[in-house]
Amino acid sequence: MRTVLLTGFEPFDKEPVNPSWEAVRALDGQRIGDDPARSAIIVARQLPCVFGAAISGMVALLDELKPDVVIAVGQAGGRTEMSIERIAINVDDARIADNAGAQPIDTTIATEGPAAYFSTLPIKAITRDLREAGVPAMVSQTAGTFVCNHVFYGLMHALAQRGHGGTRGGFIHIPYLPEQAARHPGAPSLALDTLIAGLRVAVATTLNTAADVREQGGQLH
Amino acid sequence: MRTVLLTGFEPFDKEPVNPSWEAVRALDGQRIGDDPARSAIIVARQLPCVFGAAISGMVALLDELKPDVVIAVGQAGGRTEMSIERIAINVDDARIADNAGAQPIDTTIATEGPAAYFSTLPIKAITRDLREAGVPAMVSQTAGTFVCNHVFYGLMHALAQRGHGGTRGGFIHIPYLPEQAARHPGAPSLALDTLIAGLRVAVATTLNTAADVREQGGQLH
Amino acid sequence: MRTVLLTGFEPFDKEPVNPSWEAVRALDGQRIGDDPARSAIIVARQLPCVFGAAISGMVALLDELKPDVVIAVGQAGGRTEMSIERIAINVDDARIADNAGAQPIDTTIATEGPAAYFSTLPIKAITRDLREAGVPAMVSQTAGTFVCNHVFYGLMHALAQRGHGGTRGGFIHIPYLPEQAARHPGAPSLALDTLIAGLRVAVATTLNTAADVREQGGQLH
Amino acid sequence: MRTVLLTGFEPFDKEPVNPSWEAVRALDGQRIGDDPARSAIIVARQLPCVFGAAISGMVALLDELKPDVVIAVGQAGGRTEMSIERIAINVDDARIADNAGAQPIDTTIATEGPAAYFSTLPIKAITRDLREAGVPAMVSQTAGTFVCNHVFYGLMHALAQRGHGGTRGGFIHIPYLPEQAARHPGAPSLALDTLIAGLRVAVATTLNTAADVREQGGQLH
Repeated sequence: MRTVLLTGFEPFDKEPVNPSWEAVRALDGQRIGDDPARSAIIVARQLPCVFGAAISGMVALLDELKPDVVIAVGQAGGRTEMSIERIAINVDDARIADNAGAQPIDTTIATEGPAAYFSTLPIKAITRDLREAGVPAMVSQTAGTFVCNHVFYGLMHALAQRGHGGTRGGFIHIPYLPEQAARHPGAPSLALDTLIAGLRVAVATTLNTAADVREQGGQLH
Repeated sequence: MRTVLLTGFEPFDKEPVNPSWEAVRALDGQRIGDDPARSAIIVARQLPCVFGAAISGMVALLDELKPDVVIAVGQAGGRTEMSIERIAINVDDARIADNAGAQPIDTTIATEGPAAYFSTLPIKAITRDLREAGVPAMVSQTAGTFVCNHVFYGLMHALAQRGHGGTRGGFIHIPYLPEQAARHPGAPSLALDTLIAGLRVAVATTLNTAADVREQGGQLH
Repeated sequence: MRTVLLTGFEPFDKEPVNPSWEAVRALDGQRIGDDPARSAIIVARQLPCVFGAAISGMVALLDELKPDVVIAVGQAGGRTEMSIERIAINVDDARIADNAGAQPIDTTIATEGPAAYFSTLPIKAITRDLREAGVPAMVSQTAGTFVCNHVFYGLMHALAQRGHGGTRGGFIHIPYLPEQAARHPGAPSLALDTLIAGLRVAVATTLNTAADVREQGGQLH
Repeated sequence: MRTVLLTGFEPFDKEPVNPSWEAVRALDGQRIGDDPARSAIIVARQLPCVFGAAISGMVALLDELKPDVVIAVGQAGGRTEMSIERIAINVDDARIADNAGAQPIDTTIATEGPAAYFSTLPIKAITRDLREAGVPAMVSQTAGTFVCNHVFYGLMHALAQRGHGGTRGGFIHIPYLPEQAARHPGAPSLALDTLIAGLRVAVATTLNTAADVREQGGQLH
């Protein structure tokens, strides 16, 4: 049985909830796939919205769980769709303070690390399958420069240093929940049920897709 | 027992479904309110997305059902929230053809009618109660110039000509469903359950609110 | 020689300038059109961003100047194009205080006035000519519910009470200037030269167009 | 005298002009700075909007001109501000065909190249100085995945392979011109004069700034 680690974040930016944690916690312990040879069990864990501690928490989970797939999930208030991130970049540049009060500007995440890592999830296949399942989704070319990108980069850097061992990793940004959007006039949202269904699709597609499909998912700029 | 008429539209603009009809049909026959003196029964009906026929269909429903409250509901693809419309204007100006192929430009809906009618629903109280219930909502200053505004104007004009008889009327625009947004990259959506819950709130607030509350709901421009 | 009154507003909402005043003042005293029988002189005046006083200022200008055409211009921070307004509605609903500290909510502008007035400018011809001149432009279905709509409604109500006397009136919303947008990350803008050129087009088209053209300019919602 | 190479693109995507070429050509031959020790001469050149040929054109210009600073400029239709790009990524993923008909999907730009290169321009200082000069500007976290990102990556890869030799390079995306936006309802724009003034600021700031300033310019997501 394979193990899929899903991480969500604690609330930040004065929000009472974080949809990423609400969605992944609902999937904790669930089995994906009927074929015993290909099926997997989901383990959901929460990470702090804190530079540094979020990555060390992620690394500890890699050591503890030795997952086959890791999908870190985070809130992207203002986005309309599930955003399958393409790339993590080696910089922290915070517009607001994290939950520990730190606000780094233009600092490097890993001094010896490369400028960026590409997701090793099948991002095009996930986007295609989400849309076919009726879940609004897109490939995103930037995960920003806050704690989400920080954890995404830290995850990919840790996997690269371990030689991956076959573990695939990536990041998915999700919109506000409707009850959050109700306090942010004009903000889009997706319902928790939609997010949970979408993350199940993302996990299943990853488990079933060795090489990503060639479908458009770029941006002109 | 009071009667609340909810209308939704048939699909248009190449969509296979119209969320307005999906939402109101789910409420057909439901009773709102426990107090027999104040409770009401919902009747849901579909209108064609056709200039002229949509208004004559609405007028026939007023004659048949003699409702105490009428809320016409329509799809607003691209909006993020339930939009409680403030005003209907006396013009048709169609960017696309309606379902019968007509595309009027700058024609008057009612030759002898006034330039506009204000909704007689408690639009501020509905917006407040939707947000408190966790449903993204806003007051909207324009219902556009297509069949939605057409029906809204036709409804208010018919009620005005009858001296209202106490019947209150208005219009609510709703976003795409997620499965529609999944085919329109970048488009926001609300889940059907959220829309149904929101319309129940709108009906209940209308039934319980004689005079609207004074809360901000305007736009600078 | 005909007279065209262009009004702009004083700055509001903490801005140091108001592009509407900067643009119209640049046109003060200019003559539009070579044909003496059709040409006109522009008079530019400033209005306060104050409920009530803005309308009484406008009415005083109508009495003083007896203009043939009146185009009130106002700032619409966040819009991308010159917005030719279609309709003024009989309500004040302020999201911020005006320059005198007043913040009316859902109050009627003219107690005995109709719900709305349509612009009597050739809004479709203006939009067409602006685009042909390379100026981004659109027909707008709402002028909001702040002082801009207030003045627009007050203007049209005053003209209606006077039986118009042939005077045509309307409202054009314009975006921020670039130097304002530079302080509002993400905000669109148009250069002052573009705005001035655009207002000249709007005046010339109005002078030369008796009946508006039938071109699409509506919104689905 | 130092040399600053500014490149613009030929028109693409059915546009008759490309604002990047219109803006840089206006600066060709201009001298920036009064101090002979620090001043520079601008050389402007056009690149084809073609995968592969755009990079080989850029590399030939590096060989020919041996510039001290290279700023590649490209059109970003739909953006509101001058966007100072932070990072170029090693992937082509085209939503439309380039001017030679090619439409690569998820292909690597440089097989042996790293996942990404950071701009070596002082992106924060440029953004700050543009805003102070009244030019709307932002730091952008993604240059997309079309020919603009392609050239940006190719430029930085070529400079890295040569050991830079002190040459600094980066990319700036600019909005439509107003006359383009006039054909794309809703699209923002900046005037050509504003773009030219902005590029002069970007060049001057680069010449005068050894180490970038620490100012916020990140995104939450």
